[in-house]
Amino acid sequence: MTSQEIKENAKKYVLQSWSRQGGLDPIPVEKAEGIYFYDYDGNRYTDMSSQLVNMNLGYGNPDIGEAIKKQVDQYCFIGPSFAAESRVTLAKMIIDLLPDTFGKVFFTNAGADANENAIKIARMYTGRKKIFSRYRSYHGSSFGAGNLTGEPRRYPLEPGIPGFIKFFDPYIYREPIEFKSEEEATNYYLAKLREQVIYEGPDQVAAIVIETITGSNGIIIPPKGYLPGVRKICDEFGIVMICDEVMAGWARTGKMFAFENFDVVPDLVTFAKGVTCGYVQLGGVAVSSKIAAYFDDHVLSCGLTYSGHPLACAAGVACVNYYTKANILDNVNKVGKVLGEKLEEFKEKHACVGDVRYIGLFSCVELVKDKKTKEALVSYGKDPEGIMSKIVGLLKARKFMTYSHENMIFVCPPLIITEAQLTEEMEKMDEVLGIVDREFL
Amino acid sequence: MTSQEIKENAKKYVLQSWSRQGGLDPIPVEKAEGIYFYDYDGNRYTDMSSQLVNMNLGYGNPDIGEAIKKQVDQYCFIGPSFAAESRVTLAKMIIDLLPDTFGKVFFTNAGADANENAIKIARMYTGRKKIFSRYRSYHGSSFGAGNLTGEPRRYPLEPGIPGFIKFFDPYIYREPIEFKSEEEATNYYLAKLREQVIYEGPDQVAAIVIETITGSNGIIIPPKGYLPGVRKICDEFGIVMICDEVMAGWARTGKMFAFENFDVVPDLVTFAKGVTCGYVQLGGVAVSSKIAAYFDDHVLSCGLTYSGHPLACAAGVACVNYYTKANILDNVNKVGKVLGEKLEEFKEKHACVGDVRYIGLFSCVELVKDKKTKEALVSYGKDPEGIMSKIVGLLKARKFMTYSHENMIFVCPPLIITEAQLTEEMEKMDEVLGIVDREFL
Repeated sequence: MTSQEIKENAKKYVLQSWSRQGGLDPIPVEKAEGIYFYDYDGNRYTDMSSQLVNMNLGYGNPDIGEAIKKQVDQYCFIGPSFAAESRVTLAKMIIDLLPDTFGKVFFTNAGADANENAIKIARMYTGRKKIFSRYRSYHGSSFGAGNLTGEPRRYPLEPGIPGFIKFFDPYIYREPIEFKSEEEATNYYLAKLREQVIYEGPDQVAAIVIETITGSNGIIIPPKGYLPGVRKICDEFGIVMICDEVMAGWARTGKMFAFENFDVVPDLVTFAKGVTCGYVQLGGVAVSSKIAAYFDDHVLSCGLTYSGHPLACAAGVACVNYYTKANILDNVNKVGKVLGEKLEEFKEKHACVGDVRYIGLFSCVELVKDKKTKEALVSYGKDPEGIMSKIVGLLKARKFMTYSHENMIFVCPPLIITEAQLTEEMEKMDEVLGIVDREFL
Repeated sequence: MTSQEIKENAKKYVLQSWSRQGGLDPIPVEKAEGIYFYDYDGNRYTDMSSQLVNMNLGYGNPDIGEAIKKQVDQYCFIGPSFAAESRVTLAKMIIDLLPDTFGKVFFTNAGADANENAIKIARMYTGRKKIFSRYRSYHGSSFGAGNLTGEPRRYPLEPGIPGFIKFFDPYIYREPIEFKSEEEATNYYLAKLREQVIYEGPDQVAAIVIETITGSNGIIIPPKGYLPGVRKICDEFGIVMICDEVMAGWARTGKMFAFENFDVVPDLVTFAKGVTCGYVQLGGVAVSSKIAAYFDDHVLSCGLTYSGHPLACAAGVACVNYYTKANILDNVNKVGKVLGEKLEEFKEKHACVGDVRYIGLFSCVELVKDKKTKEALVSYGKDPEGIMSKIVGLLKARKFMTYSHENMIFVCPPLIITEAQLTEEMEKMDEVLGIVDREFL
């Protein structure tokens, strides 16, 4: 097909996620390499969101490509009840990367079903039904993961599943009270969470599910002591602590897993995206030895045809090895520092930048009409004039490709980005934020 | 790793679906070709279930393998908001294979999320909430698909989602009343369904979801007129008719889609498995033009990172082309006829065979203690002595690899199986059923 035919047929035959289909104008992508992808007219686009924060190692990684081809020659698929070398190797690698308390992995196709299965595991293990998760969160859009999700993408799934309870994130920037210190904030959020657990009946609560760092809903980084405090509440009441690391995991934050930044060890960790960078779809739940042992003599009532897909696991083995081989963590920490400096500079310089939040190469810029009142550039859940689309469009016109959510713009480039590449792109963002200052406030 | 290490590490690090983990003894698989796979000791196993009824074209299909490798060289992944040639090509191919009323495809990773999204689409389109599905059904094990599911694998997801309603399948063999004719049975089931829809409030019912032919729960083939009758009830009350063809689709029944056997056209068709044979994971929802058009100016509130994964779609293009290229439908109809004859022979010959149900290469044998009373060999949901495992074990000892569900043994080989291969395998089954007659009744 020609580029034009690909575009026309995309519009004619493919339903695109989270969109009104009328008026879509998808770019046909011909090739991709490193942090760049190209259309059929030779235009080069810089991927500043790692697609959906999954292309951690960028495009065309030769190790992953070769591993896939090699696995094709062995076999693409054998069912979950057989032992496949790639599946077993990856499971062992993941457990070896995690703290000693972890024992086994249950593999899924992606992040949503990783979260679905994590809450099933917690319910089976505890014999309890209630699940806590947070308002500013996205955990997927299937019914279980979508009911964990706290933002509007869950609405089509409602009325919700009985026993799914929401609590508030430590979203200090927009809290209606002002905290005197980070410690005070931490104590406040933990006291409210503990209070809510008690009101819901602690012996009915199976799990507390949190994105270690809230991703799509604004890179909300927990204050010091928050996650250990959640851990303590879980321990006090026998609740399973589940960290969703679908976005934040796999070196994104400068640690292999995001929870390593916060002196805490969860019971279950869900992962996806960066485990294969999406070369082949893969997700999973890493399970503590203690919880895994429960299923030695109890049926693990979880299953899917493609659990531990051998081709996906072969991609995963190569991908996870590559993080080490290429010293990706070093690069994230080095380039992440520059990213943080640039973002702080923007916050100083631009009237439209209310807050910037960043850790490693995981960051966002929160846009406001007024820095003092913190009034958001667009209201929650509403952007009738499409202001955010226009701003993303200004970036795209400069081949800086990313996406927005509410009043936030994400900067989450592939972790292989160099300092020079980042600097070049951030100049484009600087320019666009200048336009927002002048024309959108 | 050696074979022994693969097995030991599988037991140590991988949580296996639907199992007590203690005492698992998974076979390490070294290679696979055609309808056979091999362990590291050179033992050859015949795949008589197409793994989980997904390996329709068997192992090592060169067209699919080459297509995957070629796509790796272009790119493995680009996000759903871009136009990728493989994604667009496959969507067009699927729509071209379906009746003229179909318009667009929403791609997912597998069958469960295909069903999750189908019910979301039906709810958004109708503005209604209630969903009908059947007791003897399996639609997946995530919360939405699992709540559609009518059998015990849904229990860990309960209390269920409000508004998910179950009705009975046309399971004539075990109906407590005896029908004088197929027509009478059809009229009975349709009258009961219509009555139940009316009790639930027809203007609250978004969708009726059925496996076109019930798969895992016993290859329950609807009587003549049943599916057109369901269609009529849907039309009468503005309900979306969803056919789950995850197992039954893609030539399994001797037609490309199972509904083609029954003179009916659903509104949504969910698919997975055979679209890529699981070489790379892929699923989706084919949507009627009428329903697709609704989303031109309404947000399709569905999404997943890997919707229309380019590598998976490349595998799908090659796979779907191969069905035609290799005249797979002809083979299914030819070998399926022999399969049916063998099964009828077993029913005549073996005291333990209560019923056999088959269409194309989709079949099962229902085992009973007593042919007259139809008492099942094991009670529903219970098999404390592991009788069915023992029978499956007897088949496995003969390298006839399949699985059981309740009191049923499945025979769903890859669609490339020859008549000679089938005959060879069915002799093993004949022998095992003889043992069951003598030792298990």
